[in-house]
Amino acid sequence: MPDKEVARIKIAYLGGGSRGWAHVLMRDLALSPVLSGEVYLYDINLEAAKLNEEFGTWIQQQPGAISDWRYYAVPTIEEALRDADFVICSIQPGPLEAMEQDLAIPAKYGLLYPVGDTIGAPGLVRGLRAALIYEDFAQKIADLCPQAWVINYTNPMTICTRTLTKVCPELKVFGCCHEVFGVQELLAELVEKYLGAPRPNRREIEVNVLGINHFTWIDHATYKGHDLLELVRHHIAQEGVLRPYTKEEVLSWNSYFACAHQVKYQLFKHYGVLAAAGDRHLAEFVPGFLTDEETVYRYGFSLTPISYRYQRWEEAPAKIKAIMEGKEPFKLEHSSEEGTEQMCALLGLGDMMTNCNLPNEGQIPNLPLGAVVETNAYFSRDSVRPLTAGPLPEGVINLVEPHVRNQEMIVEAALTRDVDLAFQAVFSDPLTTLPIDKAWAMFQEMLQATKEWLPGFDI
Amino acid sequence: MPDKEVARIKIAYLGGGSRGWAHVLMRDLALSPVLSGEVYLYDINLEAAKLNEEFGTWIQQQPGAISDWRYYAVPTIEEALRDADFVICSIQPGPLEAMEQDLAIPAKYGLLYPVGDTIGAPGLVRGLRAALIYEDFAQKIADLCPQAWVINYTNPMTICTRTLTKVCPELKVFGCCHEVFGVQELLAELVEKYLGAPRPNRREIEVNVLGINHFTWIDHATYKGHDLLELVRHHIAQEGVLRPYTKEEVLSWNSYFACAHQVKYQLFKHYGVLAAAGDRHLAEFVPGFLTDEETVYRYGFSLTPISYRYQRWEEAPAKIKAIMEGKEPFKLEHSSEEGTEQMCALLGLGDMMTNCNLPNEGQIPNLPLGAVVETNAYFSRDSVRPLTAGPLPEGVINLVEPHVRNQEMIVEAALTRDVDLAFQAVFSDPLTTLPIDKAWAMFQEMLQATKEWLPGFDI
Amino acid sequence: MPDKEVARIKIAYLGGGSRGWAHVLMRDLALSPVLSGEVYLYDINLEAAKLNEEFGTWIQQQPGAISDWRYYAVPTIEEALRDADFVICSIQPGPLEAMEQDLAIPAKYGLLYPVGDTIGAPGLVRGLRAALIYEDFAQKIADLCPQAWVINYTNPMTICTRTLTKVCPELKVFGCCHEVFGVQELLAELVEKYLGAPRPNRREIEVNVLGINHFTWIDHATYKGHDLLELVRHHIAQEGVLRPYTKEEVLSWNSYFACAHQVKYQLFKHYGVLAAAGDRHLAEFVPGFLTDEETVYRYGFSLTPISYRYQRWEEAPAKIKAIMEGKEPFKLEHSSEEGTEQMCALLGLGDMMTNCNLPNEGQIPNLPLGAVVETNAYFSRDSVRPLTAGPLPEGVINLVEPHVRNQEMIVEAALTRDVDLAFQAVFSDPLTTLPIDKAWAMFQEMLQATKEWLPGFDI
Amino acid sequence: MPDKEVARIKIAYLGGGSRGWAHVLMRDLALSPVLSGEVYLYDINLEAAKLNEEFGTWIQQQPGAISDWRYYAVPTIEEALRDADFVICSIQPGPLEAMEQDLAIPAKYGLLYPVGDTIGAPGLVRGLRAALIYEDFAQKIADLCPQAWVINYTNPMTICTRTLTKVCPELKVFGCCHEVFGVQELLAELVEKYLGAPRPNRREIEVNVLGINHFTWIDHATYKGHDLLELVRHHIAQEGVLRPYTKEEVLSWNSYFACAHQVKYQLFKHYGVLAAAGDRHLAEFVPGFLTDEETVYRYGFSLTPISYRYQRWEEAPAKIKAIMEGKEPFKLEHSSEEGTEQMCALLGLGDMMTNCNLPNEGQIPNLPLGAVVETNAYFSRDSVRPLTAGPLPEGVINLVEPHVRNQEMIVEAALTRDVDLAFQAVFSDPLTTLPIDKAWAMFQEMLQATKEWLPGFDI
Repeated sequence: MPDKEVARIKIAYLGGGSRGWAHVLMRDLALSPVLSGEVYLYDINLEAAKLNEEFGTWIQQQPGAISDWRYYAVPTIEEALRDADFVICSIQPGPLEAMEQDLAIPAKYGLLYPVGDTIGAPGLVRGLRAALIYEDFAQKIADLCPQAWVINYTNPMTICTRTLTKVCPELKVFGCCHEVFGVQELLAELVEKYLGAPRPNRREIEVNVLGINHFTWIDHATYKGHDLLELVRHHIAQEGVLRPYTKEEVLSWNSYFACAHQVKYQLFKHYGVLAAAGDRHLAEFVPGFLTDEETVYRYGFSLTPISYRYQRWEEAPAKIKAIMEGKEPFKLEHSSEEGTEQMCALLGLGDMMTNCNLPNEGQIPNLPLGAVVETNAYFSRDSVRPLTAGPLPEGVINLVEPHVRNQEMIVEAALTRDVDLAFQAVFSDPLTTLPIDKAWAMFQEMLQATKEWLPGFDI
Repeated sequence: MPDKEVARIKIAYLGGGSRGWAHVLMRDLALSPVLSGEVYLYDINLEAAKLNEEFGTWIQQQPGAISDWRYYAVPTIEEALRDADFVICSIQPGPLEAMEQDLAIPAKYGLLYPVGDTIGAPGLVRGLRAALIYEDFAQKIADLCPQAWVINYTNPMTICTRTLTKVCPELKVFGCCHEVFGVQELLAELVEKYLGAPRPNRREIEVNVLGINHFTWIDHATYKGHDLLELVRHHIAQEGVLRPYTKEEVLSWNSYFACAHQVKYQLFKHYGVLAAAGDRHLAEFVPGFLTDEETVYRYGFSLTPISYRYQRWEEAPAKIKAIMEGKEPFKLEHSSEEGTEQMCALLGLGDMMTNCNLPNEGQIPNLPLGAVVETNAYFSRDSVRPLTAGPLPEGVINLVEPHVRNQEMIVEAALTRDVDLAFQAVFSDPLTTLPIDKAWAMFQEMLQATKEWLPGFDI
Repeated sequence: MPDKEVARIKIAYLGGGSRGWAHVLMRDLALSPVLSGEVYLYDINLEAAKLNEEFGTWIQQQPGAISDWRYYAVPTIEEALRDADFVICSIQPGPLEAMEQDLAIPAKYGLLYPVGDTIGAPGLVRGLRAALIYEDFAQKIADLCPQAWVINYTNPMTICTRTLTKVCPELKVFGCCHEVFGVQELLAELVEKYLGAPRPNRREIEVNVLGINHFTWIDHATYKGHDLLELVRHHIAQEGVLRPYTKEEVLSWNSYFACAHQVKYQLFKHYGVLAAAGDRHLAEFVPGFLTDEETVYRYGFSLTPISYRYQRWEEAPAKIKAIMEGKEPFKLEHSSEEGTEQMCALLGLGDMMTNCNLPNEGQIPNLPLGAVVETNAYFSRDSVRPLTAGPLPEGVINLVEPHVRNQEMIVEAALTRDVDLAFQAVFSDPLTTLPIDKAWAMFQEMLQATKEWLPGFDI
Repeated sequence: MPDKEVARIKIAYLGGGSRGWAHVLMRDLALSPVLSGEVYLYDINLEAAKLNEEFGTWIQQQPGAISDWRYYAVPTIEEALRDADFVICSIQPGPLEAMEQDLAIPAKYGLLYPVGDTIGAPGLVRGLRAALIYEDFAQKIADLCPQAWVINYTNPMTICTRTLTKVCPELKVFGCCHEVFGVQELLAELVEKYLGAPRPNRREIEVNVLGINHFTWIDHATYKGHDLLELVRHHIAQEGVLRPYTKEEVLSWNSYFACAHQVKYQLFKHYGVLAAAGDRHLAEFVPGFLTDEETVYRYGFSLTPISYRYQRWEEAPAKIKAIMEGKEPFKLEHSSEEGTEQMCALLGLGDMMTNCNLPNEGQIPNLPLGAVVETNAYFSRDSVRPLTAGPLPEGVINLVEPHVRNQEMIVEAALTRDVDLAFQAVFSDPLTTLPIDKAWAMFQEMLQATKEWLPGFDI
């Protein structure tokens, strides 16, 4: 980005009707002391993008907004992308109806997934859909704003990011996820609990991160020189930390996202390294925790029902309108997300180090080159360089690499419209514990149910 | 083996009380037109070795025996090994009582295995025991007959062979298994059935073999230039070839070793390459076929009950005695095994090409170097060189490599007495579909039950 | 090659005006007890091809010819290739005038090469020309006879063979060179000299071959179990074996191809493994032996002057005519070459094991996959599988790998018409001991001098 | 370094009699606003260490010194190392007399080296000596201060650093060299010259660094978004930038360290990436520039005569004394070195990013894992993580990797006392353009001349 006038940048927001991320970003942009410019919101649901245009514009008028940002909902992706400096991708790969099928069909075969957006049969089939959409994104970005930095937030993170880099290797792409922040918060809690220190900010928890999105591991964590993995070891040895939970307990938390970290701690107990994501995600990568609802509760987490997603989805616009009408409270404050900081670093306004998803060019030497992995990275002007994270331990690689290969196969299957290869990925997911003919029947049903989102496939 | 007097060679037979392989070998040796010498039988059950000494000697006296072989049961392994030209390893790693526990404990947790000697929780725990025994073998061979060729027949094949090469990399070792012969026979059947040719000898079926023992794949098979994988494709498309079986049907075969090749064909249908081993073995590598007895029968094979092994074990000596007393018929004829041919080739008496198990030095470029793999190899004087087999297909590697890593971890765990690493291998076996705390409980029970065979482990 | 009527095969001979290899092949074909068919001779010099047609036909009429072969000189490569079963490539990549420049220009810069057809500035520039020709061959073969086996004899062997496999990876290609036979003959001599045995046939000398064409190494050689590398060690320790030679001595041999094996033995003394090729070739891979003519003689070999090649080239047709007119003696006997045996093996008429040049798929694990390397290989029906040869020793890899990379760069440079990349290869050849600006000037001169043979390059 | 009291740290300085680095460090320490503690100076020349003790103490008393540092010369390495927080290694591997021989003997054979401390026959033989010394350092550090950070400044940098990490992989080691700063300064000059901007600080020149010490490459360099490699391309296209120099010109510079960057620019012209080190170093890695003195001058640099080093060495103590006596001026100001900043970062007092030498764990994916390479790295509390630098370009790898292998062989040769392996490294250095028997004679002479520094070798 030579000679860029930093004062005004153009952001293309793909999935600009987003009811979550977009709002977080708008707030952080409004509060940025250095960034100003224009955000072009593109969405297949133009109406949703228009609501966000309205909301973004409204935010800029609130007290505390110190920057100058303008929002434009546009009907074509081309308008959004042309000469953009940054492209933010935050879409739903297929509507909630597709996600409903992703979960309901495996459930008929006895396979349960608490999330269904990353891995397992639902995540991989969602990945097929996503890769087709991202193939198109990649080509259009290469055409209309080849110098732009592309930031992906969509799940399945790895498959989306990998599709961009596989289709157009020269694009500047990285993927961001806040799941690692969660384990830093958890460690900060333990610091407070056991070290008698005030609870540190999560950024003071230094971690070496390595793995793949939602299945990232911490093999080294310190706080001012204290070994925090040692502290986790101490913690789980306390009476009552590792124990079975009941349905009642779990329901009493009133949150589908809460968990008791039993999956994380059990894995830590036997592998000695700490998985970063929440238990809902972890349980989708390792067999045994999702046999039935009872087992799920036993390990202290729950399945997110699709009804919850529908409800949240439907209520969101009314909520935004209520805010703008002053009927709901609104407070303009910084989120805990790092998107605007990353943009600043890329514009040469201050280096930073954080975790993100990038093609493996050696940062994890025992995973395949080219596959998208998650590690720490160093952000500076027009540059994101992963820090080497070292190899995954011998035992853990056997939990992680099959998923890496499956994700690679899904991207390849999508780009070559190869149903058989896609099935091989689904079948070798460790949670697909069906005989191969039943797995095939399930997979066929899943493709049939979402086939309008799988153009070009011979289904 | 420079300047070896071929006329008389010394074979050390470890597991010399063997009630199967030993008898096959004795017959083939008796009929060899070129080999003569001495076989030293060593076994922790000296009595069994003595019976074999007696039987071997008796065989040499039968009409048709054309060579000069002498058999000696010896009470120490040192006597057997000293200055041997060949070492044959064919042992039971732990008694049937241990194998009984290997199967019974997982069964309590809902995990069934039709064989239990290769992979899965039973095979891996058996592997731990075997590796400890083979560690000792390796050191003694290196000490007493470092120039000898060591041929392993014991299961778990991969773990036993790998322990020898890991402990003493300079030993000359390979492992032999006749499972690939079976798929050649099956293909010969299809040639007869569909090509209107008389049934060919299995050796006329040319195959490229690649994978690991009992999970070896054929990616190229021809008979006089005919593509036999195409023929398999044709075969399984016939009505009634792929179908569910009933318990009655399977029981009517009166054999625990018979199978309907449903597992092999189903895998072929979706992966396009042909697994070589019988379905009993295959079903232990790929999840879904062993959920319960009913499912097992549905795919046309059965679980070998430990009672059957006890019975065969107990009846064997009486049978041998009956043969020697003329009460049971005996026919001195060549087996279909290749052990004596291989020895001839190694002695410079005629090159041969066949499949065997060897450390990977590039023959399968997408599996780790050093791990023991099974491919074709070229046998000539004092030399066994694997033929390059090329890479496993993208989808298949994800079925195979986790097992390769687990076997490597078991060998490493045995040699370093590392219970946690051994558990990580057991837990990441794709058939261990238990949550990690239950998998750990099962594993602990298994170790407890066989701990006298696990010296040095802190159990 | 399913269902091939072996009785009659079609061979396409590219470079069918060949004055060397073609005649050897014709004789071996005439004497084949199992092969018959047609040979289509294509050459840019149609007249030369016609002479070979005449000669081949004449040979078939000689006493002792037992097969039925017909020869046809054809004016287009398409006629030769269409539906061929075998394609033999044995061409000159550019006329002798080009080779003259390849040698003369470096000589002005003080760089001497005894051969100039394989490596060094002359071999690499020749390789550029050859790769352009072979790019075309590859496409035409893929089009007209995709099932054919393609056997390359042209130098630079590695670059020609690699171009075929890089342009059309699905072609069945291997490259043959008799240089390894030479070291087997040399070892057979030592057996006779030191072991008191009658001189063995070279095929009884068992060797493990690994490296690249003309820079292949033997790390294991035996004769009936005797360690022949030990014997070489003994030999070179004899007084007078390693010593300086004089110009007079070398000239007295009256052969540009004779050598005193000083280069081979000196390398063996310090590396412990035996280079297979003759010293003329070896001296082109390792610096120091070609500083000036005096040094060349000192190590007991000589530079082949281009005048010699011109002379041989010009005299050849007359010689052939003289033979056919009965003015020169002719004896129909088997050559020591293996081409017809290899064809038999590929047709399913008897397996064989010998050395050849193939893309590395693991046979040498510490050289790059895909690069063409030379090792032993197993020939059987429609199949050539390299035997794994193991890694090159630590020290030797540093002599070999730079050449492998340079050859890879030349092929890539040719296919992408990239002058800079080609220069990088020439510059990093260890014999290019010029400063980079002078190396560039030399390279420019070389390209200018042969530019009509480098179409598409921006020179 | 958990719970370290940062206020006072202990530094062990091996080579504490150092007449260069030590003085730089002392000044930077005196000016540190955050670091205080003790420096233990150990040297085989105790007198020299004592002079530094005196000088360090004197510096602390000068106006401007704001920290509290104490200096102790100690007679044993153990006293220095025990419980040290940092170990600085800055020694001469053998006296100047050894270096004199390193250069004089090759010169007899026509091989010239402008420096002789890194690579080529002199650098590799020096490396043998250094590796023996560092083997001992590694063991003592592991024993006496295993938690310490070890910073190496000694040349040959790669060999010294690699010996530490090979002997004790668990040590925390990195190596520092300011050669990259030089290319940043050069680029800063070009910015000033061509972009009309005031000359930037070298730290504003952002570079991606990859390669090995003294042969590191820049494949990406920017200043505020300007592509500086493009600027170099523009620069060398100017008339008179690339041109031959005369002896007179070069001598007129009055500095053995000055150069006209002709080697750097010529390499850049043909490879498109910029070598970082000065021409004296570069010319030792690539053949052709050192044929004779005239050629050296032609490319605008000179050979450092050993007499210069003797003189500097002898004059140094008097100079220090003169300073302390006030006869020579002294100014207490910060150097351009980064040692104290790095220590601060490791103590948790502020992260930083800079280039350093570390074992390759993936930062350069096409160089061997484990070999010591130079790239950017991120320094934070108790952690140095290399940034991935990506692969070296196809052409450059062939210039770099042979040296990497040779350095690896020298370390291995030193640790196993293997003269033959060491010779193989020396022989395959691209500047060793001798025939192998002459190279061996030279190598033998070199070892003989310095054999007292090669204990354990059979010379």
